[in-house]
Amino acid sequence: MKKSLGKGTHAMPTPVWLVGSYDMAGKPNLATVAWGGVCSSDPAAVTISLRKSRYSYDAILRRGAFTVNIPSQQFAVAADYAGIASGKNEDKFAQAGLTAVKSDLVDAPYVAEFPLVIECRLLQTVEIGVHTQFIGEIVDVKADESVLDANGLPDPARVLPLIYSPTNRVYYGLGEPVGKGFDIGKQLMK
Amino acid sequence: MKKSLGKGTHAMPTPVWLVGSYDMAGKPNLATVAWGGVCSSDPAAVTISLRKSRYSYDAILRRGAFTVNIPSQQFAVAADYAGIASGKNEDKFAQAGLTAVKSDLVDAPYVAEFPLVIECRLLQTVEIGVHTQFIGEIVDVKADESVLDANGLPDPARVLPLIYSPTNRVYYGLGEPVGKGFDIGKQLMK
Repeated sequence: MKKSLGKGTHAMPTPVWLVGSYDMAGKPNLATVAWGGVCSSDPAAVTISLRKSRYSYDAILRRGAFTVNIPSQQFAVAADYAGIASGKNEDKFAQAGLTAVKSDLVDAPYVAEFPLVIECRLLQTVEIGVHTQFIGEIVDVKADESVLDANGLPDPARVLPLIYSPTNRVYYGLGEPVGKGFDIGKQLMK
Repeated sequence: MKKSLGKGTHAMPTPVWLVGSYDMAGKPNLATVAWGGVCSSDPAAVTISLRKSRYSYDAILRRGAFTVNIPSQQFAVAADYAGIASGKNEDKFAQAGLTAVKSDLVDAPYVAEFPLVIECRLLQTVEIGVHTQFIGEIVDVKADESVLDANGLPDPARVLPLIYSPTNRVYYGLGEPVGKGFDIGKQLMK
C-alpha cells in the first residue's frame, strides 16, 4: 500500500544544467535548471523549462538560441549560485569565475570550464502553466578531450555530472555502473 | 579547446522511467524512457517522449493518461527489459514479475513493486521529429513508506533511482550527496 503525497514534482533523477544565453546588451548569462531533459533523437533535441520571470527568458526568445552546459561535480557551488542569482543584477560568469565562449554555431555563449556543452537552436516553445518549455535542436555537442572514452564519446565517469533531487533540494554525484542498456534485460525476453 | 562531437544526444544525466499505460484491450503495459523530465511546477507536470512505433503511443493518446514508475537500482533488469521488448507481443508486467495496480485517479496502471510512482493526466502532445512529447499533469505521487524521509517525502538515498547515459548505454546508481541546493551557491552572491 503506497502513501499518497499529492501533486508535487517528486521526480528523480533530474539534471543540473546551466543554460547559457546572451541578453539584449550582449552580456553572457547562465540559468541553472533541473526542469529539462532530452526530448527527441532526430532531430536531436533537448528541452528546458523557465519561468517568465527568469532573466534568460527574453534572451533565449530574442536570440533564438541557448546552450546547455553540464558541470562536473567540482562545479556544484557555481551551479547552485547560477540558480539563485539573477543575471539582471549580477554577472554570473564573472562571479563564478567562469569563462564565456561565443559559440560559432548559435547566438549563445558556453562555459569553457565545463567538460560537456550542447549548442542549441530554439525550435519551439510550449506554454505549461508557470513554466515555458524551450525546445532546442542540438546543433553540436562539444567536450573536453579529457572526458572522452575509447570511442571518442563523453564518459559519465569522467564528466561526473551532478544529479539533483527537487524534493529534498540535494545535489548528488554519479554512482557506480549498474548494467548495460539494451543488454541486461534480454534475459527476460520471451 | 573543446572537441566537436556533432549532433548526438550526448546529454547526462537522463532518467530511467517506466511509463505505464493500458492498451485498447485493457492490458497493462510498460515502456522504459530516458527522454523525459519535469517540465513545470504549477501545474506540476512531467514530459516523456515516445516514437510513434512504440506500443504505448496509441494507448496513452486514447486513454489520456499514463504513470511514471521510478525503479530502484534492484529493478535494473526489469527496466532494461521493458525498453527492449514490445507490449504488442509480450506481457511485460508478467515477464518482469511486476504487479500492475489500477490507478484510482487516472486510466493507467502503476507498478506495485517500484518505490515511487507518478500518476499523470495527459495535458498535451508536442511533435518533435521522430519523437512525440507527452506532457502529463501530475495528479498524485505515491511512494512506499519505507523510502520516505523525516519530512514524509521521498529520499533519493532510499529510492535509489537509476541514472542512464544514452551515449555509452550504461545504467548508473546514485552517488553521494554533494551539497544542498539554494544554499551552497550563496557564498558567490554579490
